[in-house]
Amino acid sequence: MNKSIILHILGWISCFEAAFLILPVIVALIYGENSVFAFLITIGICLIIGVPLALRKPKNRTFFAKEGFISVALGWILLSLIGSLPFLISGQIPNPVDALFEIVSGFTTTGSSILNNVDVLDKSMLFWRSFTHWIGGMGVLVLVLAILPLARGESIHIMRAESPGPSVDKLVPRMRTSASLLYGIYIGMTILMIILLLIGKMPLFDSLTLTFGTAGTGGFAINNTSIMSYTPYHQSVITIFMFLFGVNFNFYYLILLRKVKDAVKMEEVRWYFIIFAGAVILISLNTGGLKGFFNALHHSAFQVSSIMTTTGYATVDFNYWPTFSKTILVILMFIGACAGSTGGGIKVSRILMLFKTIGKEMAFLVHKRSIKVIKINDKKQENDTIKSTNVYFVTFIFIFAISLLIISLDNFDFTTNFSAVTATLNNIGPGLGNVGPMGNFSGFSNLSKIVLMFNMLMGRLEIFPILLLFSPSTWK
Amino acid sequence: MNKSIILHILGWISCFEAAFLILPVIVALIYGENSVFAFLITIGICLIIGVPLALRKPKNRTFFAKEGFISVALGWILLSLIGSLPFLISGQIPNPVDALFEIVSGFTTTGSSILNNVDVLDKSMLFWRSFTHWIGGMGVLVLVLAILPLARGESIHIMRAESPGPSVDKLVPRMRTSASLLYGIYIGMTILMIILLLIGKMPLFDSLTLTFGTAGTGGFAINNTSIMSYTPYHQSVITIFMFLFGVNFNFYYLILLRKVKDAVKMEEVRWYFIIFAGAVILISLNTGGLKGFFNALHHSAFQVSSIMTTTGYATVDFNYWPTFSKTILVILMFIGACAGSTGGGIKVSRILMLFKTIGKEMAFLVHKRSIKVIKINDKKQENDTIKSTNVYFVTFIFIFAISLLIISLDNFDFTTNFSAVTATLNNIGPGLGNVGPMGNFSGFSNLSKIVLMFNMLMGRLEIFPILLLFSPSTWK
Repeated sequence: MNKSIILHILGWISCFEAAFLILPVIVALIYGENSVFAFLITIGICLIIGVPLALRKPKNRTFFAKEGFISVALGWILLSLIGSLPFLISGQIPNPVDALFEIVSGFTTTGSSILNNVDVLDKSMLFWRSFTHWIGGMGVLVLVLAILPLARGESIHIMRAESPGPSVDKLVPRMRTSASLLYGIYIGMTILMIILLLIGKMPLFDSLTLTFGTAGTGGFAINNTSIMSYTPYHQSVITIFMFLFGVNFNFYYLILLRKVKDAVKMEEVRWYFIIFAGAVILISLNTGGLKGFFNALHHSAFQVSSIMTTTGYATVDFNYWPTFSKTILVILMFIGACAGSTGGGIKVSRILMLFKTIGKEMAFLVHKRSIKVIKINDKKQENDTIKSTNVYFVTFIFIFAISLLIISLDNFDFTTNFSAVTATLNNIGPGLGNVGPMGNFSGFSNLSKIVLMFNMLMGRLEIFPILLLFSPSTWK
Repeated sequence: MNKSIILHILGWISCFEAAFLILPVIVALIYGENSVFAFLITIGICLIIGVPLALRKPKNRTFFAKEGFISVALGWILLSLIGSLPFLISGQIPNPVDALFEIVSGFTTTGSSILNNVDVLDKSMLFWRSFTHWIGGMGVLVLVLAILPLARGESIHIMRAESPGPSVDKLVPRMRTSASLLYGIYIGMTILMIILLLIGKMPLFDSLTLTFGTAGTGGFAINNTSIMSYTPYHQSVITIFMFLFGVNFNFYYLILLRKVKDAVKMEEVRWYFIIFAGAVILISLNTGGLKGFFNALHHSAFQVSSIMTTTGYATVDFNYWPTFSKTILVILMFIGACAGSTGGGIKVSRILMLFKTIGKEMAFLVHKRSIKVIKINDKKQENDTIKSTNVYFVTFIFIFAISLLIISLDNFDFTTNFSAVTATLNNIGPGLGNVGPMGNFSGFSNLSKIVLMFNMLMGRLEIFPILLLFSPSTWK
């Protein structure tokens, strides 16, 4: 393995993080918070680590899939380790495992928290926490390769390892342009949402942080009641934008190219919408008895949008919903958003492909010679993609079972454990039981928190980069 | 599709059921129960349906995989419909859905019950209920083809559709001899177990019924406390035999041929043992604090053997165990026993193959050209088998999710619903929460009971025969 180039990339990631940290410094200065020193010290550490590594030219530029996976896995771990320092240095989250949990949850756009009380954090800390959602949503390395002139092999392997979905659709032949385009759309939608929230008279600080949480489909709230205390207008804006950030970004790219027909034809986006609408209607009917159908429609649209895109904001404590509605939410947690969006979960396109695989298998069982082709968007899917999707699903469930077993040592009830793993591995945030929308993850032991952190990383990076990190053959 | 041959086979199944029903008639006569009439009427119905269909020669003997699947699916449904009649006619289970649930649970060797109180049933009814476990364990159609002279194509397709496991290992080239051998081993082990229980002074009725439940890995008890009230000797005999009936029967065949080395080399059996031993030790350590390690060892060995083989007997109410132990049990429910045994679940060999597939995928991700061969028992596995195993797993989880959603309409808690689907789809019997070892399934609505019945059938027949029944292309 080419270690020198991986270190080189890690150096750049560290430098980028220093740049990101300037924003919370500004926030701390505006609010006159002592936390400013914690951020400045962290920036110093970033540069001490980052600059020498970034400046040293790698001995050779050999870069294969393995290097891509390992750069991404180590990059995210480094990002999290450094990102947790402000909490520790300022003493706002004194336990290192907790601080790391909180920031891994931020970068992976999960939004699970170990904080019993969010209100006591400094504004700049809340800002940093939410900002990591925005950074993690589109991917740090994608940003690196949008800005740095990397070789083609490097770009494609990094893009493959960091971007969610069964296969990476290149928007344009050049990876660097692809990455820039993605970030362009991302920034545009972010700004639009901030403006819409401000129009509804939301304070600027809230508008920024909540938009970061929405854009990255993260879900960290800046108060203890999540989104409950905001106006129905604001809740509706957030509902719509959560949904929009869960759409495959290729859709927007096609729209930008005025290829509206092609965009509307995208099977994944269609099914994403159908599942969304179906879930909203079923939950509205199921919960409507309480306060009328339209009230139920408002909250169920918010909650379905929040859970399906794996954001995790809440306007109600769905822990008190009927089991049918809760079960729909749990199933949506696994389905997740579109590939090529900022959302997590297994992804609609994978679920779609798996359903088609079942049809193919049935035809095969009945007639061995049957060669049914699986098509998505009228394009024949490669056998390798189908196989990888199947194996991805299997690996996902196995990781799920192992995690469930380890955290059950803490002796919480089965529902809490099951939904804690579901919420972290799919990058949702809240689960059911003790980790419901009004609960948090503080009760778990350090061991469980570490397991759940790895779940979040595996969820965001789609398992294999992290798994390869632990494979002895990688380090041979 | 060749409907005439399917009707012919269904006719024979009906006749076989008439023969099976003679045993409970004898029991009813011995205990002087009025139920004897219910059984006699049912025998009459069997013969009225069965004899004309069995005697009519099928127009042609074309028989492909499709006919195999449909014969098996319809055969099991017919078997259950008829099998539920004694409960209904005698009025001992007056609700038709309940009666059908109970007998589907019997034939599929699940052991889930809708009875609040088992003690009120007639002895002959208890006998019939347990006897269906024994019939369903090895498979009715396997028995049919052990006895009837069917064509080679018919045998192999029926064997494939009814036998559990990713691929059917033929013991000997002739299917009919294979089927006879399997039943021979099955009957031998059954008799041995009955003798061992009798030696420990268990009443004959209890010995017979509990052995039927063990041999078929079913789990219906004949009193409300399952196996708690029996002596430690009896509990130990049952522990050992549950384990033995969960072993791949090829193992015994190899032993009979004195190929002990080949038998011991069987990877699936090795892992079955390793998983069993690991689970017993972990649960003993986890529950040992209560009444000492050796007591814990006794009960955890019983419970692990019971759950892993998907029998479902209980000597303790594991609902009160720590969550870690309960989670181990839930994971064992999914793993299940060996392929080619009477046990259910996903099967150790499939889990083994899936793990190896993950390793292969990791090698593939790192190096696209990697062609790692998956071997089990030193034999290269066909790509089709690997693919089918993956798709089987995916289908299994999808069916699981859909069932979970429908039964959640009854608004039981998540743990109850999750474990109810787990317990039926894996043919275990008891789950956690309301459907724990001391609970039952009577609280569910008729809709849920029907869904759970299909879960049991899909679990026993490995999903696809039942799924094909609902596929429009089957009936074209």
